[in-house]
Amino acid sequence: MIELDRNGPPLTTQIADGLAALIQRGQLGAGSRLPSVRQMAARLNVSTFTVIAGYDRLIARNLIEARAGAGYFVIGAAKSHAGDLSAALADPVDAVGFALQALDSSGAVVRSGSGFLPEAWLSDVVPGALVARVAKARNALQATAPAQGHLGLRRQLSDHLAGVGIAAHPTQIITTIGATQSLDLLLRTLLQAGDSLIVEDPGYLFYSAQARAMDLNLVPVPRLTDGPDLAAFEDAVKSFKPKAFVTQTLLHNPTGGTTSAANCHRLLALAESRGLAVIEDDVYGAIAPKGATRLAPLDGLRRTYYVGSFSKLLSPALRVGFMAVPREAVDRIVGQKILSVLGTPSLSEVIVEAVLDSGRYLRHTLKVGGKLAQYRQRAREVLTEAGVTLGPADGLFLWGRFESMKDSDSLVRRALEAGILLAKGSLFSPTGSYADYLRFNVAHSCDVRLGQFLRNAASLPPKAEVHYLRRK
Amino acid sequence: MIELDRNGPPLTTQIADGLAALIQRGQLGAGSRLPSVRQMAARLNVSTFTVIAGYDRLIARNLIEARAGAGYFVIGAAKSHAGDLSAALADPVDAVGFALQALDSSGAVVRSGSGFLPEAWLSDVVPGALVARVAKARNALQATAPAQGHLGLRRQLSDHLAGVGIAAHPTQIITTIGATQSLDLLLRTLLQAGDSLIVEDPGYLFYSAQARAMDLNLVPVPRLTDGPDLAAFEDAVKSFKPKAFVTQTLLHNPTGGTTSAANCHRLLALAESRGLAVIEDDVYGAIAPKGATRLAPLDGLRRTYYVGSFSKLLSPALRVGFMAVPREAVDRIVGQKILSVLGTPSLSEVIVEAVLDSGRYLRHTLKVGGKLAQYRQRAREVLTEAGVTLGPADGLFLWGRFESMKDSDSLVRRALEAGILLAKGSLFSPTGSYADYLRFNVAHSCDVRLGQFLRNAASLPPKAEVHYLRRK
Repeated sequence: MIELDRNGPPLTTQIADGLAALIQRGQLGAGSRLPSVRQMAARLNVSTFTVIAGYDRLIARNLIEARAGAGYFVIGAAKSHAGDLSAALADPVDAVGFALQALDSSGAVVRSGSGFLPEAWLSDVVPGALVARVAKARNALQATAPAQGHLGLRRQLSDHLAGVGIAAHPTQIITTIGATQSLDLLLRTLLQAGDSLIVEDPGYLFYSAQARAMDLNLVPVPRLTDGPDLAAFEDAVKSFKPKAFVTQTLLHNPTGGTTSAANCHRLLALAESRGLAVIEDDVYGAIAPKGATRLAPLDGLRRTYYVGSFSKLLSPALRVGFMAVPREAVDRIVGQKILSVLGTPSLSEVIVEAVLDSGRYLRHTLKVGGKLAQYRQRAREVLTEAGVTLGPADGLFLWGRFESMKDSDSLVRRALEAGILLAKGSLFSPTGSYADYLRFNVAHSCDVRLGQFLRNAASLPPKAEVHYLRRK
Repeated sequence: MIELDRNGPPLTTQIADGLAALIQRGQLGAGSRLPSVRQMAARLNVSTFTVIAGYDRLIARNLIEARAGAGYFVIGAAKSHAGDLSAALADPVDAVGFALQALDSSGAVVRSGSGFLPEAWLSDVVPGALVARVAKARNALQATAPAQGHLGLRRQLSDHLAGVGIAAHPTQIITTIGATQSLDLLLRTLLQAGDSLIVEDPGYLFYSAQARAMDLNLVPVPRLTDGPDLAAFEDAVKSFKPKAFVTQTLLHNPTGGTTSAANCHRLLALAESRGLAVIEDDVYGAIAPKGATRLAPLDGLRRTYYVGSFSKLLSPALRVGFMAVPREAVDRIVGQKILSVLGTPSLSEVIVEAVLDSGRYLRHTLKVGGKLAQYRQRAREVLTEAGVTLGPADGLFLWGRFESMKDSDSLVRRALEAGILLAKGSLFSPTGSYADYLRFNVAHSCDVRLGQFLRNAASLPPKAEVHYLRRK
């Protein structure tokens, strides 16, 4: 009838969900009698208490009923409990829909468009035993952490940042729910509705979405192979009096490019002369070449807000990010953090502290960097054969032009139906350009199914559109 | 020289911090030589690797240097590494400063003003073994969760809410970083700058702070013993055309009162007739009497946004909150969640799922409820003897008038110097009223030192003010 996985979710959940699925699919029809609690417990080799708890949850879901003295009977399939539709029907052609798809690992099988590493690549770096040890330590689950973040982690981060030349005292470091929250807090603190923000075109898809939701004025500057277009940057600074500029210096998302040292120096000089704040997102920095030039060390954290994260390379389940900011900005940003989330989960933070302390993170990122280099080579072959023109790129992504793509929305939707998550280029463009580009995660793009799909894409007949839920 | 706690933070951290403290205090002067790595390892009974890692961190902090062939030498105390000052100097008389103090458990010893339970009260409910089991399950640390929140937890919550009469499908439930983030997301989604929001006076301190930071127009309605003042509510609705109303129906913070069933019905009817959204914060609901009337079940989640949390009664280190919302609002709120934090930490969410599934939470909240009743009696005695006039109250808080308090800012600061965290009444008033009130957490207010301090407070000589960091 149902089978239990002893390493899976709680047994009660498995019993309730297993039976619910049978009821929903009609294999247990309305009116049929469930095995008695004792029978079920014997059959599944669990306690009667566990079975009762499972049955109780089916009663709460209105799928079965208890008849006094007679046992448990199926009421019938409940339409309203058919599952979690909102992610399954999310349309991958806008930023929020794409994020819903990218985060839902129960979705597409070939996750070429994802920004995350495959789960298997992260399986060793945070051992269950380390989590167990940390969780059993004194007050790990009972104590609140300071609003600014767990001090032990901030000290580790301070030491860690010293390694890339950033002198950030622990009191200048603020932990966050990943880099996304760092950006949210920085935009809320440094800018007001109507202010202008310089973003890169193409650039990370959420900057623009976050800024638009706050009614900021977006000023796009083209991203070239060696960083932002300096002439356009200078023009933008003069014409729009922007308050801030957000950039990824190293292993830029989506292009995989890196800003040259000379370009870094010029950008900072321009920002300085015009009083701009610089937000440097360095979430891939740990796999960048040693000695790469970043803005924050050049600037000495005077006007640079440095953003890091452990969601990409360590664990997406912990959601630990951080920023190192100018001293005088700390209080305002921590104040905004308090009003947004009160505090960040200290359990996640003590786990990251322990991983950093053990030296595991350093070894892990070296390993990931080596693996990415191998995969990049293979992904290049798969994609080039399929007709994608790729530029030079390092790090997690390849950015490619796919000329046979007539309508990227239709292609991306059709790919999803075939179990392939693609990231369309225009998602990364604040001007809606790059309509014939796609971003590929090299760790997910060596799959022959991806190559096949793309090769066939040009010749596919047009197809009736699926009806996606309209967002907002 | 230093001692290690095998149950404490990572050993490397303890070595680095222990030696750093000796250097900062001058007990290890500039130029003095540290024990060799081998000597230190033998003395502390740790590996040489651990000692080297600890020394490396002191080098990174610029406190010691390695001289080739000669060993490790102290450079001297670094002014910039004197510790984490921002919380220590936070002024407890404004909302953000108070939150900094309340979250920093290394601060005041007697935490009467805190909104959290004592750590000892939470020590059994999330066993380390449960965390270890969950963390070792397949992909617990490697997988992303859906943006809306871990589905297993949302299913548990759906069943859990059915128990208090709220029919919320898992697809109507959104997990958050505690109730604070639920409020942040709701205010950002339902209102725009300039819109009016009805808040209670007195009421939870952050609602007003969050709303003000978003340039919302605050419309205060007096909170009476049986809930919001209905006449004032009706006036407010007519005069200000507010978009939403936020309230705590049960065990209201700070008064400890509960809205009557009749009042609930009238509030909903008024909200309905004028098209108001109702935000019901039920973070203390799990310790409310069985069968208490809430707004969400009366309304059937048509215009009510129900907010819950496990930070108060289960674990502040996990930061798991949630909301159950009208179906048509789900997509917009999840979209705002993505733009704010991308996703919430699924490790925290699978832990809460397992705790709920085990039945532990239910047993725990029963125990906490019983304990609070005992403590409330004793806290009443301590406070009444000290000259505080208390109203009727249930739940976590007592709300009292302290007539001998001439200047609450000065009293609260003086208390903090004496190691006592107090919550001044006007923090909870959007109109700045209740200047002679204090809010007491009954679990932290049976301490004789609190009684002594308050008894002496009236007769204390005026004292020069400490200079606190000014917060924005």
